Parts: sequence; C-alpha cells; structure tokens
Amino acid sequence: MRDNKSGSLKRKAVVLLSGGLDSATTLYAAKKNGFCCFCLSFDYGQRHRRELRAARAVAKAARCQQRVLKIQFPWKGSALLDAFSSLPHPGKDKTDIPVTYVPARNIIFLSFALSYAETIGAEAIFIGAHAQDYSGYPDCRPEFYASFKNVVQTGTKAGVKGRRILIRTPLLRKTKSEIVRLGSALKVPFALTWSCYRGGSKPCGNCDSCYYRAKGFKEAGIKDPLIHLHV
Amino acid sequence: MRDNKSGSLKRKAVVLLSGGLDSATTLYAAKKNGFCCFCLSFDYGQRHRRELRAARAVAKAARCQQRVLKIQFPWKGSALLDAFSSLPHPGKDKTDIPVTYVPARNIIFLSFALSYAETIGAEAIFIGAHAQDYSGYPDCRPEFYASFKNVVQTGTKAGVKGRRILIRTPLLRKTKSEIVRLGSALKVPFALTWSCYRGGSKPCGNCDSCYYRAKGFKEAGIKDPLIHLHV
Repeated sequence: MRDNKSGSLKRKAVVLLSGGLDSATTLYAAKKNGFCCFCLSFDYGQRHRRELRAARAVAKAARCQQRVLKIQFPWKGSALLDAFSSLPHPGKDKTDIPVTYVPARNIIFLSFALSYAETIGAEAIFIGAHAQDYSGYPDCRPEFYASFKNVVQTGTKAGVKGRRILIRTPLLRKTKSEIVRLGSALKVPFALTWSCYRGGSKPCGNCDSCYYRAKGFKEAGIKDPLIHLHV
Repeated sequence: MRDNKSGSLKRKAVVLLSGGLDSATTLYAAKKNGFCCFCLSFDYGQRHRRELRAARAVAKAARCQQRVLKIQFPWKGSALLDAFSSLPHPGKDKTDIPVTYVPARNIIFLSFALSYAETIGAEAIFIGAHAQDYSGYPDCRPEFYASFKNVVQTGTKAGVKGRRILIRTPLLRKTKSEIVRLGSALKVPFALTWSCYRGGSKPCGNCDSCYYRAKGFKEAGIKDPLIHLHV
C-alpha cells in the first residue's frame, strides 16, 4: 500500500523531486522525518527530460504519490533550456553564475509547491538545494530561502491564519559527498536517480552535473550504482 | 508599429495582464510611466477564461507584446477553478478569505513574471493588486509585496548582481472608484476589459467581481461601457 494512503494521520509534506541524487535524498530524509510525502516534479523543457523518468521511478520506490506539472519558459534564458547552447566545462572554478541557471526557476517551483501544500494541508515543503549549488545559483542560497519563508507567511491563507508551512532544506549546508553518505544511510535507490545535464541514454560523464556527482561518490568512498549500470 | 518594437531604448517592464479593469489600468499606468511593456497572461483553468480574450484585446489596443502561459492547478483548491462551486454573494461583508482565493496564485504569477523580466532585462514588474482585494486576498497585501521584493533581491541573478527588478503596484492603495477614475484619465479601453467571475458571454451582474466593478463605476460617476455594450 502506498505511503500516502496508509499514512493519513501523518504530517504531510510536498517534496520537490527532480529525479536527481539530491532531491531523491531529500525525499528519503523527509520520509525518515515521519512525513507523508507528496512529490512534485516539473516538465519545463529541460534538455535532460530523462530526469523525469528517474523522478517517477524514485517516487514509486519510495511509495509516494507524484505529480508532474508541465510548465513553459518560452523566453528561454538558460543553457538548460536550449539544446544548442554549450554546457559548462566540468570542475572549472565557479566565479560566476553558471549558464545553466534558469531565471527564477526555484522560485516558480516553490510557488507551485506552496499552492499544492496549502491545498492539501501540508506542513512542509522539502527542496534539495545544497552548498555546492548555492556557490553558483542565487535561488539555492540560504538568504533566498529565508526570504521565501516570509512570502509564505504574508502571501498565503495558511500564513495569515497562522498555519505554518515550513520550507525545509535538509541538504543546504552539506557537500556532495555528505549527501551521498546520507543518501546511502537512508537507502536511497541511487541507481534510479539521474543527474546528467545532457539528454542522452546514459550519463555523459563530462558535464558539470556528472562531474560533481562522480566527485561526491568518490569522496564518500561509495560506488555509484548508476555508473555501474551503464559500464 | 508596436510599442515593443519602436521603443527599444525605453526601460522595459513586465505587466501581469488578466484582462480585468485593474490590470488594464495598471498597463496604461506603466506605459504612462514611460515603460515599454511586455504583457503576461495566464490560462490557468479559471472558470472565467473569457478574460483571456479581453487580455489579448487590451494588449493589442495598448500596442504591446503579450504572452499567454498555460499553467495547471491540478489540486484545485478554489471556487475560481471549479465550475461546480458556488461563487460568493456580492457585497457581503468580507470577514474571511473569499472562496475565490487560489492558493499561491499571485506568487506563481509573479515568479513567472520575474523569470521573464530577468531574461529580457526588464526593470520592473507591474501588478494590479489593490486595497479592495487585499482586504480578502493574502497575496494582494502590501506586506506580501514587501516580502516578494526580498525574494527578487536574494533569489535571482539580477538581484545578486545588483540589478534591480522592482515590483510595482500602482493601484495598491486605491479604491475601485479611484481606479476607474485613473483608468478613465489614462484612456483605458474599459469596453475591452472583463471582470465577471462566471464564464458567460456577458457579465452576470451579480458575482462579487461584477458587484465591485459596478460600485466602482457608480462611485466614480462614470458609465461602464462594457455594460452599455451588453444592454
């Protein structure tokens, strides 16, 4: 039986689930915290739509409901939305915001999660932003999440009525290797996740996202079962 | 020639245009302020989808570009999304948040506007929230807009780089009759706008939205050309 059906007395949470290593670990962390999780994924024209298949598989493995919302960014504005743009070279020093930054993407994702959470009476929204990301992406930084909390309090019925919807970022201060260790302890099905920014049938191994995933597993001293699958 | 094409040296603004009296007046106020306006409308399953036709007509009359984004609220949660729900009776004292409140709707709209504004290099986002609304809708209150400003500053590339994207709410402290007077002075084509919450071919005249529109025109001492059209 599904977690969502069996756990009607549990506290509810909406979990933003992209299908990557981070969001999958976040989902398992939310479950570990006793939440009945409702996963929310976005089909937003990302070049790595392959991650949506991963998101479905992870939600299923975690026995959670999942919704996939189709949204548009017709104005593009990111290498992640444009199959003809170059992706950044892996491991280069990040002195600027990466070209894979999608303007206001996490703000949009959180806003939909908030609408969902408010409607179903969820107490929390989980998002897998973390230290590695917030060195580059503005909408992954702690200051942003602090600001968004005020939006929840002032701009929703729940907030005005004094019902709290917390924005939970359990990975925010963790490195990639710490996330891998946490995910491993939580028995996250890493083989089902997908990180590669390219839309191929197997991880390219040389985009930014593949690079940091490999580095995280290496530093954690754990083998990545996804790579093992594709070797 | 369209304003957007002729005005490449003008400051740009994204204007949230629902097609109602308030957003149309906001668009004309933004133009009056010298902005080259890019209108953004949403097809979100609202029962009064008729307003989208109005939004297109108003954008065309104002000689501005317009984008219509299709988004989903599959979790419903509002009488405005459900053709079988009752709409509130007009003019009743608002002691609570109306059933037409759509969870986090304006937060979602603003987030998309922010993504658009950041991509095209706009300096401002205009939204037609006002006093009448904020007595009931949490996401129309001044406190909410103050919070959202911090989200813009902390959560976007523009904000982090010190480029400002202002959230402009020119109607925020105006009553409906003051908005009608302002719109009249700005030559807003009121006959093209649409306010009625029902999806009929002419304004129902007895929903909340029709009631406040009629009251606004009456108090302003101006005839509503839309009603005149349908009589």
